[in-house]
Amino acid sequence: MLENLKQAVYEANMALPRHGLVTFTWGNVSAVDRESGYFVIKPSGVPYDRLKPEDMVVMDLNMNRIEGDLNPSSDTATHCELYRAFGGIGGIVHTHSPWATSWAQAGRAIPCYGTTHADYIYGQVPCVRSLTKEELKDYEANTGKVIAAHFRSLDESAVPCVLCQNHGPFAWGKDAEEAVRNAVVLEEVARMAAWTEMLNPRVSEAPKDLQDKHYFRKHGANAYYGQQERKM
Amino acid sequence: MLENLKQAVYEANMALPRHGLVTFTWGNVSAVDRESGYFVIKPSGVPYDRLKPEDMVVMDLNMNRIEGDLNPSSDTATHCELYRAFGGIGGIVHTHSPWATSWAQAGRAIPCYGTTHADYIYGQVPCVRSLTKEELKDYEANTGKVIAAHFRSLDESAVPCVLCQNHGPFAWGKDAEEAVRNAVVLEEVARMAAWTEMLNPRVSEAPKDLQDKHYFRKHGANAYYGQQERKM
Amino acid sequence: MLENLKQAVYEANMALPRHGLVTFTWGNVSAVDRESGYFVIKPSGVPYDRLKPEDMVVMDLNMNRIEGDLNPSSDTATHCELYRAFGGIGGIVHTHSPWATSWAQAGRAIPCYGTTHADYIYGQVPCVRSLTKEELKDYEANTGKVIAAHFRSLDESAVPCVLCQNHGPFAWGKDAEEAVRNAVVLEEVARMAAWTEMLNPRVSEAPKDLQDKHYFRKHGANAYYGQQERKM
Amino acid sequence: MLENLKQAVYEANMALPRHGLVTFTWGNVSAVDRESGYFVIKPSGVPYDRLKPEDMVVMDLNMNRIEGDLNPSSDTATHCELYRAFGGIGGIVHTHSPWATSWAQAGRAIPCYGTTHADYIYGQVPCVRSLTKEELKDYEANTGKVIAAHFRSLDESAVPCVLCQNHGPFAWGKDAEEAVRNAVVLEEVARMAAWTEMLNPRVSEAPKDLQDKHYFRKHGANAYYGQQERKM
Repeated sequence: MLENLKQAVYEANMALPRHGLVTFTWGNVSAVDRESGYFVIKPSGVPYDRLKPEDMVVMDLNMNRIEGDLNPSSDTATHCELYRAFGGIGGIVHTHSPWATSWAQAGRAIPCYGTTHADYIYGQVPCVRSLTKEELKDYEANTGKVIAAHFRSLDESAVPCVLCQNHGPFAWGKDAEEAVRNAVVLEEVARMAAWTEMLNPRVSEAPKDLQDKHYFRKHGANAYYGQQERKM
Repeated sequence: MLENLKQAVYEANMALPRHGLVTFTWGNVSAVDRESGYFVIKPSGVPYDRLKPEDMVVMDLNMNRIEGDLNPSSDTATHCELYRAFGGIGGIVHTHSPWATSWAQAGRAIPCYGTTHADYIYGQVPCVRSLTKEELKDYEANTGKVIAAHFRSLDESAVPCVLCQNHGPFAWGKDAEEAVRNAVVLEEVARMAAWTEMLNPRVSEAPKDLQDKHYFRKHGANAYYGQQERKM
Repeated sequence: MLENLKQAVYEANMALPRHGLVTFTWGNVSAVDRESGYFVIKPSGVPYDRLKPEDMVVMDLNMNRIEGDLNPSSDTATHCELYRAFGGIGGIVHTHSPWATSWAQAGRAIPCYGTTHADYIYGQVPCVRSLTKEELKDYEANTGKVIAAHFRSLDESAVPCVLCQNHGPFAWGKDAEEAVRNAVVLEEVARMAAWTEMLNPRVSEAPKDLQDKHYFRKHGANAYYGQQERKM
Repeated sequence: MLENLKQAVYEANMALPRHGLVTFTWGNVSAVDRESGYFVIKPSGVPYDRLKPEDMVVMDLNMNRIEGDLNPSSDTATHCELYRAFGGIGGIVHTHSPWATSWAQAGRAIPCYGTTHADYIYGQVPCVRSLTKEELKDYEANTGKVIAAHFRSLDESAVPCVLCQNHGPFAWGKDAEEAVRNAVVLEEVARMAAWTEMLNPRVSEAPKDLQDKHYFRKHGANAYYGQQERKM
């Protein structure tokens, strides 16, 4: 069942430690098959060096386990909420990558200080609020709902990542591979933004015109980066 | 004698350089066999690439060497005191891992800024005081006694690590492997807490409700992370 | 056509990830053949692990593609302008290496704080201004023109690199290999200058006499570093 | 001639990139044979991956080349002065390792903040002044002379390293291997001292009693670290 998607999700999960984004089992990738309405996600707490494609768990968008012997990632309900809210995305990544997590712990959105950021993310990386005591009772689902509520005024294809205060980042994309790419970009952008502020505490964001120019070099109808137009 | 424990302690010691926690011989792991009352510890000053399982030294809890040709780690008396004070632990790690050591040198407890911390450590990582001139005469044993005294008001299974001012960290767990895991967690948490304060010098600790929620996701009777309940 | 130059440009591009200067495809190296007036550059958006020497694209100095099936790097027009402006250089590197990019995002020139810097770069690494809204229409070519304008009062053989505000660094040299070397030097110098200011916020630049001494140890008629005199 | 010493110096040089202390050719190790009065040093500007034991250059303590086809390291005269001034040392290392160099560029001695430092270095790591314009004429020899002058009031066996303002570190030991070890210790101590000040800008040095205790655990007649007493 969904063997190709399981393989893709397995490979995307294995890419996380290779990119230096996870310690131990602190990360998970999923991908959705929009036709069946099922998504495939990493099992909970299995070390990366023992993970196999057939360990991936198949879930539906009502949080029922459709296939798989192992428990799905403890963050599965967050992934589920995001697939329901963002109809155009195909893959999601959650990590505790250190720079993005530090911004999340600091409770700060990441300003756009340059073209590395602007090439992939249009405007700031938002930092959504911590859950209330009441919301904590259904912690994982409500994490997804708070993100979705925040993005009612944002385009999730132009801002493919978010920070959750006191927690860490989520990133997404058209598939699991692109979601991983955006998680790597986010960590790199988070690191350089921290160093930029260290070098110049009164620095301003990059000019809006430059942000537009770089983002639309890579995205949309007039993109001209790479060998073919990228679509998301 | 205690061949399985020697092998486990050897492997746990070898994991320290692999996790980037030690330079040269600056670290040591031990594990205790509660039935015999003996513990096994790394010999002093032997480079990791020459270490063999049979080099491990067997000690009793009165600091008598029971087996082994080599001198035990110079920090052995600290391990011994901790095994005497903390009856429920099975393994101990000492390193000079750079971020944890920097917090120890700064004389500061590590605040809990997020869920990475809260998943493994309940509340702050304490920083215990330097020894007095008098206490320095029996330096290693008194280091353990100062830690034990500090933990009279703390639960060592909920706070599985500590900083010793002007010195460095100790971590522990139900066995040597879990002690190493907690030493890795501590270093990661120490690093992200430093970066969090750099990004927001007036940051507050994570809400107490969130700390409770995350800690009890992984610990205690209602844990639901991973494939089975963890016990310590 | 220009097979040796393609091979050299390929190898120089492959050196970028090995030196830790690039994430994904965020970098490009070119080299010029002054006799034919053609330059060879990396194609756009091709992952390093799939890059082959024959993928390199041949361009003339009027931005015509002379040979190659793939689109040249999206930064090609910047390289082209620099080859036109700096008649003595043979190779150019662009990266988003994190420390140099952070200085660029901070909008600051890198002061010369010591001999590591002075051995390779004479005086500050300049940071040229962002483009105006009007200039952004021809973004890549104008980036090169703004650099060239800034260097009218500087010697590009003595200052073999530059930062572009809100963007990142360019470095150059007598050939592609030396350009890569200067990109590595720049990243190292950028990192140590940041740490120097962190340790001493009121630090002054290295004495001018020391800067002269070190630079001329390695450059010019009286150089005495290495096994033979270097020429650029 | 001195084949064993050449081999040892070669191996010590090759250890520098392995420990992350050098970029390109930015480092050199030498060792002295006190009987003949000759020392062996790395040639200038040869990449580490092409270096061979037989490339090592033999010099006498009057700066005459005794054997070897290649030019000796451009810092040879500094090594020579240190061997003349410090009769008890057997090996010297110079690097531009980034944290030690940043302290040197900041013009600051490294305070002793903890036992990692105190185990190997007794008191601060001094930072000696930049050379005067007059002294720059004989730059390398005078660098050694300024270090030697500073150590008239210090014991070079208790403080086995130094920072040269606006330049970088030198470290030494009883042989080339111990000199490399001290260069690694210095970089680690420099890094943790910087982070310690970042976490607590008003931090004090470690208590003098603790510094004494740790240093004499590893050094002198009453040392008890490792498998046998260390002598230098």
